[in-house]
Amino acid sequence: MLPLLTRIDHVGIACRDLDAAIGRYEATFGLQVVSLEMNEEQGVREAMLAVGTDLRPGYVQLLEPLGPDTPVGRFLARRGEGLHHVGYGVQDIGQALDAIGVRGVRLLDKRPRHGSLGASIAFLHPADLGGVLTELVQAADPA
Amino acid sequence: MLPLLTRIDHVGIACRDLDAAIGRYEATFGLQVVSLEMNEEQGVREAMLAVGTDLRPGYVQLLEPLGPDTPVGRFLARRGEGLHHVGYGVQDIGQALDAIGVRGVRLLDKRPRHGSLGASIAFLHPADLGGVLTELVQAADPA
Repeated sequence: MLPLLTRIDHVGIACRDLDAAIGRYEATFGLQVVSLEMNEEQGVREAMLAVGTDLRPGYVQLLEPLGPDTPVGRFLARRGEGLHHVGYGVQDIGQALDAIGVRGVRLLDKRPRHGSLGASIAFLHPADLGGVLTELVQAADPA
Repeated sequence: MLPLLTRIDHVGIACRDLDAAIGRYEATFGLQVVSLEMNEEQGVREAMLAVGTDLRPGYVQLLEPLGPDTPVGRFLARRGEGLHHVGYGVQDIGQALDAIGVRGVRLLDKRPRHGSLGASIAFLHPADLGGVLTELVQAADPA
């Protein structure tokens, strides 16, 4: 079986106050914000902070819900702030979804949708992956 | 401020049955186990599965507690299976702990201890990092 996952792309972290969370990661680790986006489809305001100096860094993705009745809003009410999901890089997200779909893991997104930094993304069901909400990420510019 | 974090080293995932969790990650993503260790100091049996084909891959770290009265055992009782922590690479863990300690983040380990794959590791207090248990990792063989 060819390796489907090319890298750990990011860790997604749910927070109540995006600006405070950005300030904490800047002050503690010297990370810098490379993207600040509103994603209405996913109900979040989010920041990507680059980790590492490679050609393609990994990211800390900080997620603030746009309201309580959003996925991240419900997560915060249920679990509090903390790790929300992990995103792995893939070469071709359509092929990856086809391959994973036949392996008994439910796809929360049957077709890719828009993610941070222009990527195509899709989520897999946490109940089929040991409680881990898992995202596949095909970068806009595959390095 | 020089960047402290060189990479996302791994995501730590708490599971009840290590062998079942390994089977799931192998079957779903084609990941392979590169290390299987017992860490009595941390109260876990754990597997590292390599993600990506770079010189230094990232890892999915699967953690099964050695008993209910261990950090991961208590995590499972409180939260269930799922994302437990994130580990970031650092060049020099002693310097990193000194730098972070004066920035108001409590160190769960004041001195580095032994982690997976021969690394030196230390944990930072989740309450000071938005609910995220955060690990610093100085690899045994810094590439």
